[in-house]
Amino acid sequence: MPQPPFKKIVIFGVGLIGGSFALALRRAGMVDEVVGFGRSANNLKQARELGILDRIGQDVAAEVGNADLILLATPVGQMAELMASIAPHLGAHTLITDGGSTKSDVVRDAYAQLGGKVAQFVPAHPIAGAEQSGAAAAAADLYVGKKVVLTPLPENSAASVARVRHAWELCNAVVSELTPRQHDEVFAAVSHLPHLLSFALVHDLAQRDNRDLLLSFAASGFRDFTRIAASSPEMWRDICLANREALLKELQTYIAELNQMSAALASADAVQLEQTFRAAREVRANWKEKP
Amino acid sequence: MPQPPFKKIVIFGVGLIGGSFALALRRAGMVDEVVGFGRSANNLKQARELGILDRIGQDVAAEVGNADLILLATPVGQMAELMASIAPHLGAHTLITDGGSTKSDVVRDAYAQLGGKVAQFVPAHPIAGAEQSGAAAAAADLYVGKKVVLTPLPENSAASVARVRHAWELCNAVVSELTPRQHDEVFAAVSHLPHLLSFALVHDLAQRDNRDLLLSFAASGFRDFTRIAASSPEMWRDICLANREALLKELQTYIAELNQMSAALASADAVQLEQTFRAAREVRANWKEKP
Repeated sequence: MPQPPFKKIVIFGVGLIGGSFALALRRAGMVDEVVGFGRSANNLKQARELGILDRIGQDVAAEVGNADLILLATPVGQMAELMASIAPHLGAHTLITDGGSTKSDVVRDAYAQLGGKVAQFVPAHPIAGAEQSGAAAAAADLYVGKKVVLTPLPENSAASVARVRHAWELCNAVVSELTPRQHDEVFAAVSHLPHLLSFALVHDLAQRDNRDLLLSFAASGFRDFTRIAASSPEMWRDICLANREALLKELQTYIAELNQMSAALASADAVQLEQTFRAAREVRANWKEKP
Repeated sequence: MPQPPFKKIVIFGVGLIGGSFALALRRAGMVDEVVGFGRSANNLKQARELGILDRIGQDVAAEVGNADLILLATPVGQMAELMASIAPHLGAHTLITDGGSTKSDVVRDAYAQLGGKVAQFVPAHPIAGAEQSGAAAAAADLYVGKKVVLTPLPENSAASVARVRHAWELCNAVVSELTPRQHDEVFAAVSHLPHLLSFALVHDLAQRDNRDLLLSFAASGFRDFTRIAASSPEMWRDICLANREALLKELQTYIAELNQMSAALASADAVQLEQTFRAAREVRANWKEKP
């Protein structure tokens, strides 16, 4: 069944994630009006100038009642407060989705703050991180071919999930579904842990007296391994804390793996080292970024 | 003082490193004859067909006596045997350099195998790793703008060091000097440790029952962090063993760093996490690959 366009979308946090969502729906010709809220008046002004927003919102209560769709694209730490402020004013048919990198915490906030209206919230995680931020970094093609993971709630109707899925698919994202807990475990392993490890390596070297000498001989291996250590400290602090339990488990497993490597190295166990490297190489060489 | 061309160069191990060295000197018009030895007859034949070699060597004793320069570009583990085989036949003016990724072990071999002729050996480490190997992967421009580290010995004459430096500079490499021990400590930190950590992460995930699910959600952060886990298992086994002492020290320091992170995470210490990430980010964002 063809989905109708969105008459009105309200975006909280008009940065890379929120701004790109609006631009993509506009480009698809599937939204009539986009209203934005945010903490920085300058950023909102710029979003208006860039054609991301039709209007800068002044009054949350007045705007969310007749919105078809609300996107929460603020840092995850601000979402509980935001949900509390919109909950009383939500229209009966208004759907909410979000752009948070962690899901269990956002879902917990949603149950607490949205109460009986939690069925209207279909959580999402668009995998489109970038080092840039702000409305100026937004692009209509940010999500093209990128993964978006929905973590639907038992309370969501099939129609609500389909409608939110449709919005992300209009961005040309590849949409899949996990439970919030599955999502957080998966991303602890393949995203949050690597970020932590990359930050840790650079921090380790940064403390040394001979840091400049070391860095002057760092080459392409170091460059790629540490690219993600240039990510936002605030954002990664928040992600690590939000997904603390799953991440701690991953970190402990990884430290155990390193202790095994250390033992193999200490005993000059060539066979063990080669087997470990070979198993890793096989998996990595056969891995292709999807989709 | 302008350096004369090399009349004859002998290359042991005509793969990416050895083949590219020959091609670069040829392109510079600075070598009259290149003779190659290796374990694979097919690879040598291909090197001949690709114009890397003038001749495939048949008799080590006959070839090394009148060579200006010998490049040892075999895996580091084969160098001791190779040095023993060439030592008795070296000409008085023949210089030797190498392409090994570790230096203390190669230098130890050189003292043991070359004996009184060790002054003729000027060790080198060209930083031009790649996932490919074999003569077919060789390219005249492999070393352009890449770093080559010489680790001269106290026995080397200034003229010998200058001559070997000249050869690498003809490849348009950027040549610097460290002691063998400094070299191994630096590369344990900025290259060998990251490789080990990248192998460890992929190995860790590869053991899981839900490995395919995990890998299907891995994205660009994972891709870059683990690119080096697709490196050669044999080569990295050898490098890790050759530089075992320095690498073990780095690994222990890194595990201690991770234990600190783990403690910060366990106690939800937002300040500590952010400070660590921020210090790393600052260093990484200001780092530029040199030269």
